[in-house]
Amino acid sequence: ELKEIISTINPYDLATLFENLSEKNITLLFRLLPKDLAAETFVEMDSDHQKTLIDSFSDVELKEVINELYIDDMVYLIEEMPANVVKRILRNSSDDARKMVNQILNYPQDSAGSIMTTEYVNLRSDMTIADAIKRIRQIGLDSETFDTCYVTDNVKHLIGYITLRTIILSDDKSKIEDLMERNVISVNTFDDQEEVAYLFGKYDLTVIPVVDNDNRLVGIVTVDDAWDVLEKETTEDMELMAAITPSDTPYLKKTTFEIWKSRMPWLLLLMISATFTGLIITRFEDALKTYVILTAYIPMLMDTGGNSGSQSSVTIIRGLSLNELEFGDIIKVLWKESKVALLSGLTLALVNFAKLSLFDKVGLSVALVVNITLFFTVIIAKMVGSTLPILAKKIGFDPAVMASPFITTIVDAISLLVYFMIANMILGL
Amino acid sequence: ELKEIISTINPYDLATLFENLSEKNITLLFRLLPKDLAAETFVEMDSDHQKTLIDSFSDVELKEVINELYIDDMVYLIEEMPANVVKRILRNSSDDARKMVNQILNYPQDSAGSIMTTEYVNLRSDMTIADAIKRIRQIGLDSETFDTCYVTDNVKHLIGYITLRTIILSDDKSKIEDLMERNVISVNTFDDQEEVAYLFGKYDLTVIPVVDNDNRLVGIVTVDDAWDVLEKETTEDMELMAAITPSDTPYLKKTTFEIWKSRMPWLLLLMISATFTGLIITRFEDALKTYVILTAYIPMLMDTGGNSGSQSSVTIIRGLSLNELEFGDIIKVLWKESKVALLSGLTLALVNFAKLSLFDKVGLSVALVVNITLFFTVIIAKMVGSTLPILAKKIGFDPAVMASPFITTIVDAISLLVYFMIANMILGL
Ligand SMILES: [Mg+2]
Ligand SMILES: [Mg+2]
Ligand SMILES: [Mg+2]
Ligand SMILES: [Mg+2]
Ligand SMILES: [Mg+2]
Ligand SMILES: [Mg+2]
Ligand SMILES: [Mg+2]
Ligand SMILES: [Mg+2]
Ligand SMILES: [Mg+2]
Ligand SMILES: [Mg+2]
Ligand SMILES: [Mg+2]
Ligand SMILES: [Mg+2]
Ligand SMILES: [Mg+2]
Repeated sequence: ELKEIISTINPYDLATLFENLSEKNITLLFRLLPKDLAAETFVEMDSDHQKTLIDSFSDVELKEVINELYIDDMVYLIEEMPANVVKRILRNSSDDARKMVNQILNYPQDSAGSIMTTEYVNLRSDMTIADAIKRIRQIGLDSETFDTCYVTDNVKHLIGYITLRTIILSDDKSKIEDLMERNVISVNTFDDQEEVAYLFGKYDLTVIPVVDNDNRLVGIVTVDDAWDVLEKETTEDMELMAAITPSDTPYLKKTTFEIWKSRMPWLLLLMISATFTGLIITRFEDALKTYVILTAYIPMLMDTGGNSGSQSSVTIIRGLSLNELEFGDIIKVLWKESKVALLSGLTLALVNFAKLSLFDKVGLSVALVVNITLFFTVIIAKMVGSTLPILAKKIGFDPAVMASPFITTIVDAISLLVYFMIANMILGL
Repeated sequence: ELKEIISTINPYDLATLFENLSEKNITLLFRLLPKDLAAETFVEMDSDHQKTLIDSFSDVELKEVINELYIDDMVYLIEEMPANVVKRILRNSSDDARKMVNQILNYPQDSAGSIMTTEYVNLRSDMTIADAIKRIRQIGLDSETFDTCYVTDNVKHLIGYITLRTIILSDDKSKIEDLMERNVISVNTFDDQEEVAYLFGKYDLTVIPVVDNDNRLVGIVTVDDAWDVLEKETTEDMELMAAITPSDTPYLKKTTFEIWKSRMPWLLLLMISATFTGLIITRFEDALKTYVILTAYIPMLMDTGGNSGSQSSVTIIRGLSLNELEFGDIIKVLWKESKVALLSGLTLALVNFAKLSLFDKVGLSVALVVNITLFFTVIIAKMVGSTLPILAKKIGFDPAVMASPFITTIVDAISLLVYFMIANMILGL
């Protein structure tokens, strides 16, 4: 009865349920699941609970679960488990599975090869639809998907694809070669996973074939895994933008020390960089003694500069991530940002001039110094903010680093220099 | 010949190609495309070029393209076209299409109903697999996908689903009701599109059914459109985090004025908020006159505070977006962040104390003032940064707003207050 109920629950929800049970109950309940659902649920659990389960499995039970796993999920599992568990997993795997896992583990981290699965349905171009259906029925059960089947020649070169949709809508006697699409979008095993995710969005794919340097089909990446890549890459961008070293571990699973380690170097670097602003202020100590009121506007100038610059840099970083922008657009971007900067600088300076004159009631010359500085700060900030990400990408750095923290630090120093220059000209310091 | 070549290109690449041709050549080449490819290419083009094409179409040609569009793509087209073009499109649509389009246009913006398509394959539970295949062959061509078919009762209640995979692997005589999954993940027409995208990632879906308040099936959302939602929602988060009013238009398509309008209100608001920091400095004018050296460290303190706070806020905002964190985790988060804050504050203060003493060669008491302030600023910043996004979400605001710009502004004021308090205690101002 309980068995029937839990068999209708989907793997993800079952995994969540299991993760909230005691160790003993997990093992008990897990044994009630039908084989395929058990494996799917196992995949969705976090690695701590997977380890608990594996430790409680007999070799026979372990073999059963392992046998049901798709290769990509098995690779992922192996990457997360400690060495002794890995040994046990491999000892209980088939020779085939072990070979495929090793092959995938050999691809560089974050490459298409490292996230692919090696179980797919490949057809020959001289097959009829009836042959194709027969083959799908033979090997399809072991394949994560065959909504798209790939057509290969006798040395496994990828020469086309045909969707299950086309297969089912076509006549039994039609030939695959007359129905297949020959223009296949594929990725190389060494392509970055970010490129893989990008192609899914661009071409509306649900699966993409992975080929080696000779265009031989070696695996596929399915959209659910590409989705995870997209989310991870976005998190990575956001973390870099906030001056955090990216990692794959979810926040609540990270130790205090791990979090500290991912944040500290950047805070230190940025703190030390602020030495420049300190030096500039020290250099103009006398001016500030004469006009202490100038000090009061330093935070506003620096923050407005930082915010203006971040707006531009984040816009450009996102455009680069989405491949909406590239290096060739730098002139267009600069031109657009110049116009926006001019408008924004003018607006802010005018509003702030009114505020200083009417509310703060400072003298005309101080109001002029502050707001001319504000005007130039906004313009410089937007130029710096829009150029740096594009240049960073050009020279091979991740543009996401060129966000608020770095822009702020640079713009702080520049705006102070401008401030004291203008003050010098107008107030004659 | 040319016709054959372009027929092998996929719709997205064709659209890119077309967008780079002159108006006359677009129309000429477009006429060479087979009907279905023409429609798919049309969908992938930007709205300016779509309008150009429509204007060049005869009513017969327009009808042909419109007829091939899936309803969701037709809705999207209509939303982008000017009123007179919309009229012409609707005049050349079938009654059915017009009715479905109007239905979808009536759902609130960003709801599941507004992004769904209404063409799907629904089966009855008493059908055999053979019946199902017959029905798929009948109506499948008009459906965007039937990789998953939905099972409904005689009043369209959604009662299960069966994948094409299962259909093809099963015996012709088996009954749908014995093979279908009864536990269907679905969304309500009024659910936010963000929820839709989240479920795709959570349950590894390629399509999700959309039901009305009575659990009647009204449409489906396919993964390619959910992918676009995910990208849009992420862009929205990033823009909010950088103090920009989000919009759907890609950067290069926005006018200077549009960009200015999306950035200005925030810059103004934040600039005016900086009045507080100005007031605090003015209030401690005399102290700064006596110890001008204190001014030199204001930017460093404010920036380090801002950076520390942003690290926490961005981490929490991302966790909330991914549904890894919720309101109930606030204690866990605060506890974790306190520990990280303590460690970070200590590290930074110690390093900076060494720097001030050895390199800047300031007196012991000034070094103490600066670094005790630094310590507390980091702690306060991380507390503010991690709490505000969670609270914002709780009271119904978008947590993404609580990122760098706001945190910086708040932390600036607090750190200055702490600075002058500590200075007062140690230097006796
Ligand atoms: Mg999987
Ligand atoms: Mg797409
Ligand atoms: Mg699309
Ligand atoms: Mg997978
Ligand atoms: Mg990456
Ligand atoms: Mg990246
Ligand atoms: Mg579409
Ligand atoms: Mg998933
Ligand atoms: Mg998954
Ligand atoms: Mg669609
Ligand atoms: Mg939204
Ligand atoms: Mg959102
Ligand atoms: Mg700042």
